[in-house]
Amino acid sequence: MSCKLDARDYPNNMRKIILSVAVSLDGYIEGPKGEFDWCPPPSKKEMSNFLLGIDTIFMGRKSYEMAGKSMFRDKERYVFSDTLPEKTKGIYIIRSNMLKTVSLMQQEKGKNIWLFGGASLISTFINQNMVDEMWLAFVPIILGGGKPLFENIVERKKYRLTESSVSEEYLSVKLARNTNHKK
Amino acid sequence: MSCKLDARDYPNNMRKIILSVAVSLDGYIEGPKGEFDWCPPPSKKEMSNFLLGIDTIFMGRKSYEMAGKSMFRDKERYVFSDTLPEKTKGIYIIRSNMLKTVSLMQQEKGKNIWLFGGASLISTFINQNMVDEMWLAFVPIILGGGKPLFENIVERKKYRLTESSVSEEYLSVKLARNTNHKK
Repeated sequence: MSCKLDARDYPNNMRKIILSVAVSLDGYIEGPKGEFDWCPPPSKKEMSNFLLGIDTIFMGRKSYEMAGKSMFRDKERYVFSDTLPEKTKGIYIIRSNMLKTVSLMQQEKGKNIWLFGGASLISTFINQNMVDEMWLAFVPIILGGGKPLFENIVERKKYRLTESSVSEEYLSVKLARNTNHKK
Repeated sequence: MSCKLDARDYPNNMRKIILSVAVSLDGYIEGPKGEFDWCPPPSKKEMSNFLLGIDTIFMGRKSYEMAGKSMFRDKERYVFSDTLPEKTKGIYIIRSNMLKTVSLMQQEKGKNIWLFGGASLISTFINQNMVDEMWLAFVPIILGGGKPLFENIVERKKYRLTESSVSEEYLSVKLARNTNHKK
């Protein structure tokens, strides 16, 4: 299937929030001990193409402390946290009024926004219908346990399949938010 | 990707056990109340093509009682149960020595075998490395709860991606058992 996203879904070319993550067949983004060894790294080309399309990254506090401190320094990094100091070097902190803040950011000029994780921030965004696209890379493995990508989802969320491809290492799929869910 | 399964993986054209099932993005095969309304029916053409390739169906007791009694009567239906009477009309019962029984069946002449479900029978087969192929149809929905396709998996299981396709309703993928896992 080659259909592309319909631009009309994004009035005024609003910046999209894209959840892009690798996931096991049984829906985990980390193994039972927090391990990632099951997850082949994306190709440099794919990764740099993806990064070209975004200029901003959203992270939870734990993800920032575990992985985000030294990564993606050329992007604007926003960390959602009530505990990190307001003036943490190199990042912006988002505390309260998150919905409004994010909505305003989406109306600014700029590239798309990568919802990096972790699971708790992802749940919040999905429950609020704030994830415009999901780019999932299924790794052909059953882990048997770990941290689920989708948890604490309070009601059904429908998406539209827009693209898929398969390599030896990944089944990649793009999904768009069902626009019947209003923000 | 167009690579097909390597015939050498199946000595003597052994009958394959194929798990074919629809699953939500968060890995459920039933909703929280056992509902299937989220799951569009497969096209008649797809279904009849699939059924042409199999002559035998494996079911757990609950699946048989809920869905299997009146379906697929033109196939040999095997129900794994310790409680159903040995001579239940129209089906064969498998009790003990399941591994050996199934292995002997695979060496007989015949078409492939559909592992229909439910979840508990699927887990047993996966844990025993007895699932040769998985044909998963991901429905683009997050259910938020229900009966997981994969549960009680005791160790990692790797598969090979062999084919994928996408329609409006499904992301379909075929995976083959990693032959490093010996039966």
